[in-house]
Amino acid sequence: MSNTEDALLLDAAPSAPDEAGQHQAVNHGYTSNKDAYLRRLKRIEGQVRGIARMVEDDKYCIDILTQVAAVNKALHAVSLGLVEEHIGHCVVGAAAEPDASVRADAIDAKVKEATDAIGRLLR
Amino acid sequence: MSNTEDALLLDAAPSAPDEAGQHQAVNHGYTSNKDAYLRRLKRIEGQVRGIARMVEDDKYCIDILTQVAAVNKALHAVSLGLVEEHIGHCVVGAAAEPDASVRADAIDAKVKEATDAIGRLLR
Amino acid sequence: MSNTEDALLLDAAPSAPDEAGQHQAVNHGYTSNKDAYLRRLKRIEGQVRGIARMVEDDKYCIDILTQVAAVNKALHAVSLGLVEEHIGHCVVGAAAEPDASVRADAIDAKVKEATDAIGRLLR
Amino acid sequence: MSNTEDALLLDAAPSAPDEAGQHQAVNHGYTSNKDAYLRRLKRIEGQVRGIARMVEDDKYCIDILTQVAAVNKALHAVSLGLVEEHIGHCVVGAAAEPDASVRADAIDAKVKEATDAIGRLLR
Repeated sequence: MSNTEDALLLDAAPSAPDEAGQHQAVNHGYTSNKDAYLRRLKRIEGQVRGIARMVEDDKYCIDILTQVAAVNKALHAVSLGLVEEHIGHCVVGAAAEPDASVRADAIDAKVKEATDAIGRLLR
Repeated sequence: MSNTEDALLLDAAPSAPDEAGQHQAVNHGYTSNKDAYLRRLKRIEGQVRGIARMVEDDKYCIDILTQVAAVNKALHAVSLGLVEEHIGHCVVGAAAEPDASVRADAIDAKVKEATDAIGRLLR
Repeated sequence: MSNTEDALLLDAAPSAPDEAGQHQAVNHGYTSNKDAYLRRLKRIEGQVRGIARMVEDDKYCIDILTQVAAVNKALHAVSLGLVEEHIGHCVVGAAAEPDASVRADAIDAKVKEATDAIGRLLR
Repeated sequence: MSNTEDALLLDAAPSAPDEAGQHQAVNHGYTSNKDAYLRRLKRIEGQVRGIARMVEDDKYCIDILTQVAAVNKALHAVSLGLVEEHIGHCVVGAAAEPDASVRADAIDAKVKEATDAIGRLLR
């Protein structure tokens, strides 16, 4: 399978330096579970490929829909894990900001960002 | 990339004959749009692979969540297309059943099946 | 359960004439289950009022969110019931249109309408 | 309007003292916006009552589904507001716990609780 279609979607520049202030460290919330996330995403990728094969093979539409629902559910689980780790690391990290003059704004920014991300998942 | 993980998820038997009575014909609702569905699923597969690459590259969790929400949305669009074609073909096909003695039951079965599938998408 | 709040609903104008062409008959899909739908909606209305009282009483935010999720779930069940009955009556009704020259368009219109409604629920 | 049907759903004990340790103060995240939440919930309650009236009046099923989708959307907005304020107050409050020996556990408990609540909304 070619990699060309990947290039359309996301620039895969290897580990660009993070924007200043975007988070506390290169160590994200999910870093300690990175392998688990990669395994789950690899599995989801295989599920999507399986759905394409079902379409290719003219499988029954309801069976395809069942598989699509399973992928949705798996993605929800990944999202929730990321949300949990984001709140636990990035929001709590902002709350630990020693400079009280910027702390409240840092917290507000992180909380707003997390809520917006959750809102996109709810839609 | 190996195909081994696909095998874990879905039996990929090439075009098995459909179970008797499951639908009216090998021509499913989505058959006429098969290529469009395959392109969309291929694109979604690439998006999931892109998310894995973001995790690999320690990208910011919120940016990953944004991509997950985009995949959810793309899957919703695929689901809705399949639902539309299922209702238009399989349900309407049951309604065209000439034998009036089995028609009502055939319709009920198809409608129930469609609603259950939609319910799994809503969850 | 008291009769007072029911009175709000029962004083509604009885069965106004339906818009021409909007559906096959005054008998909608849900008509036979009308009482059950009214009971479920009355219950949901009470749940929403209960949530307001929790806010009024400064209850814990997570407990309020749990009740909001319960209302979402109850509304999903109502939606699915309506979708099922819409497909079974309005779509199938269009499929039973005797005039073959307008039948296909009638079916398409009903299926499109149902799918759009499902799409609004998925979002 | 009687309170009897409310009692079925939620215990309406007036402002019971909060369980120890459940949050930092009687002042919840949403307290400052309490009136706005009450107005929104009152409006949602009216929307649900309006849906019941549509069923009573035999309105077209698709139009009812459109209203149900509108209530879902309004409830999502309320949920997101509560989530934002929960994270900003309860989670951040735990992060401000001066006793370092209990802080990490307090944060974990709040983050877990928030994520579980978000998970219930996503389903």
